[in-house]
Amino acid sequence: MDKAKAIPRRAEFAYLLPVQTRWSDNDMFGHLNNVIYNRFFETVIVSFYRECTALDFFSSPIVPYVVEIVSRFKKPLSYPETVDAALAVEEMGSRSVRFVIALFRQGESEAAAWCDWVHVFVDRATERPTEIPAALRPVFESYRRIAE
Amino acid sequence: MDKAKAIPRRAEFAYLLPVQTRWSDNDMFGHLNNVIYNRFFETVIVSFYRECTALDFFSSPIVPYVVEIVSRFKKPLSYPETVDAALAVEEMGSRSVRFVIALFRQGESEAAAWCDWVHVFVDRATERPTEIPAALRPVFESYRRIAE
Amino acid sequence: MDKAKAIPRRAEFAYLLPVQTRWSDNDMFGHLNNVIYNRFFETVIVSFYRECTALDFFSSPIVPYVVEIVSRFKKPLSYPETVDAALAVEEMGSRSVRFVIALFRQGESEAAAWCDWVHVFVDRATERPTEIPAALRPVFESYRRIAE
Amino acid sequence: MDKAKAIPRRAEFAYLLPVQTRWSDNDMFGHLNNVIYNRFFETVIVSFYRECTALDFFSSPIVPYVVEIVSRFKKPLSYPETVDAALAVEEMGSRSVRFVIALFRQGESEAAAWCDWVHVFVDRATERPTEIPAALRPVFESYRRIAE
Repeated sequence: MDKAKAIPRRAEFAYLLPVQTRWSDNDMFGHLNNVIYNRFFETVIVSFYRECTALDFFSSPIVPYVVEIVSRFKKPLSYPETVDAALAVEEMGSRSVRFVIALFRQGESEAAAWCDWVHVFVDRATERPTEIPAALRPVFESYRRIAE
Repeated sequence: MDKAKAIPRRAEFAYLLPVQTRWSDNDMFGHLNNVIYNRFFETVIVSFYRECTALDFFSSPIVPYVVEIVSRFKKPLSYPETVDAALAVEEMGSRSVRFVIALFRQGESEAAAWCDWVHVFVDRATERPTEIPAALRPVFESYRRIAE
Repeated sequence: MDKAKAIPRRAEFAYLLPVQTRWSDNDMFGHLNNVIYNRFFETVIVSFYRECTALDFFSSPIVPYVVEIVSRFKKPLSYPETVDAALAVEEMGSRSVRFVIALFRQGESEAAAWCDWVHVFVDRATERPTEIPAALRPVFESYRRIAE
Repeated sequence: MDKAKAIPRRAEFAYLLPVQTRWSDNDMFGHLNNVIYNRFFETVIVSFYRECTALDFFSSPIVPYVVEIVSRFKKPLSYPETVDAALAVEEMGSRSVRFVIALFRQGESEAAAWCDWVHVFVDRATERPTEIPAALRPVFESYRRIAE
C-alpha cells in the first residue's frame, strides 16, 4: 500500500500536543475550517521545536523555512472537542526534514486529518539552503515515525 | 474609586476557563495581539453559555446579541503561556446582561486585560429585544461578580 | 443627545479605507464575527498611521499603546460585501488620543459598527506614558471628527 | 521538467482575485504567515464558485469537499502589498477536480506561492462521492490552466 496514502495512526507518533479548540475555529459549516487544521499543524511544529530543540527562530544562525505542506482531510473535527495533534519525522535529508503531523479525535487511533510538512534549513544571513544543524539530527532521529 | 476602572481580581470570578495560546496569537510585537484578547473573551463567553446554561445559539427562540464590548489592556500576555480567562455577571437588567471577562497570567491575581461584554436578548423571529429567559436569570445570579 | 451614543455618520470622517471581506470572516451565524470587526478597526488604524504619519511602530522612540477599545455593534455585515472603514480623531490630550473608527455598509451613511480606540503614547525604552510627539499633533488635528 | 514542480505563471490563469492584506496577516517574522496563504487560497476558491457557478455550498444537493491541499512556498509576501490570487483547473475527473491556485506579487509573472486544491463532489444527504454536476463541467473547462 502506498505509505503516503495510508491514514496515520496514533501509535506511530512520539510527540503529542492536545490542542484546545475555539468556537471561532468552526466555519459556517459547523466544523473546524480546513485552514484551521493548518493553524494546528503550525502550532504543533512550533511547539515541537520549542520543547525538544534549542533552535530559536529569531536568533539561530540556521533556521528552517517551510517549503511544502501537503494536507489531507479525512473526517470533520469540531469545537468544542480537544484535538490531539501528533508529530513525527518522516524523512531526513542533508538539508531538509519532512515531518508528518496528524490530528486525532480523542479516543480514536486513525487520524482525521494530517499533513506532510517540509522544512529546508537556511542560513539566516544568506537565505541559502544549508546543512541541518548537527544538534538537531539526533532529536529528529528520536522522533522518527514509528513502524507499527 | 471608580469600580469600572478598578483592575479585576481573580477572587471576584466564579467561572474560569484556561485558554491555550497559539504561536500565531502573537503579533509582530511578540505579544498576544489585542484582537486575540477579544477572541479569548468570545471563547470564554461561548464556553460559559454552553457549560452553564441550556441556551442554544442556533435554535433557542430567544438569543443574546452582543451590542457593546469595552476592552481594557493593562499588561502584555504572550504565547506560549496559558491564559486564565474568567467571567462574572456585573449587571443584570430585564433585557440585557453585562458580563465582565478578565484575562489573568497564571499565578497572578490582577487581570492583564478585561472587558465589559453586553448581551441584549432578542427574539430570534422578530429580532426585537425581549426579556431575559427566566431559566437564565438564576444562572446569571449565581455567577455574579464576587465582592472581595 | 449623548454624543457617545449617537450613531456615527460617514460625513464625520476624513479617513476612509475600504476593507475587503473574506469568506472566513463570517462566523457560524453567517455574518461577520464581532471579533473580525475589531480586526477591521485594527486594520484601519494601522493603515492610518502608515499612510498619514511617519511613525514606525518598530523603531520610533515613542509609540502608541492601545489601552481601551469600546466597540458597539448595530447592524450585521457579511462576506462578500466590502466594508468602508472610516477613522477620525475624537479627542486629543497631552499623552493620549481617542479615535473613533466606524464601519459602513457601502452606500449607507450610518455606521453598522464602531469603536472608540484609545492610544496612549509611551517611551519605547521606559514603557512610561509620554507626550504625543509634536509631529503627530497637526496630523491628528487634521483628521478631527467633522461636526455635521 | 516535472510540471508539478514548475512555478506557475500568471498567463496560465483566467480567474484572478486581488486580495487585500491585513496587518495581522503578517506573523512575527514580518511576512505573511504560511497559514494565511491557505486563507487566501480558500478566499479565491470560494470567490470562484460564487462568481462563476450557481453552486450554493449551503443548499446544493451535491457539494465539493476538500480532500487535499498541496501548498508550496517560494517567496515571501507581506502586508501592506495587495496579492493577486489566481485560479485554474488543472485536472478534472468524473468525481473530482484539481485546481491550482497561485499567489503573485503585483507586477511579477512567477508565483510566490501556490497550491493544488482537490475537491471531491459529494452527495449532501449521503456524504458519498458522486459525479461532478453537469452544469459545472463546462465552467471548469473554461477555466483550464492555459498552456503557454
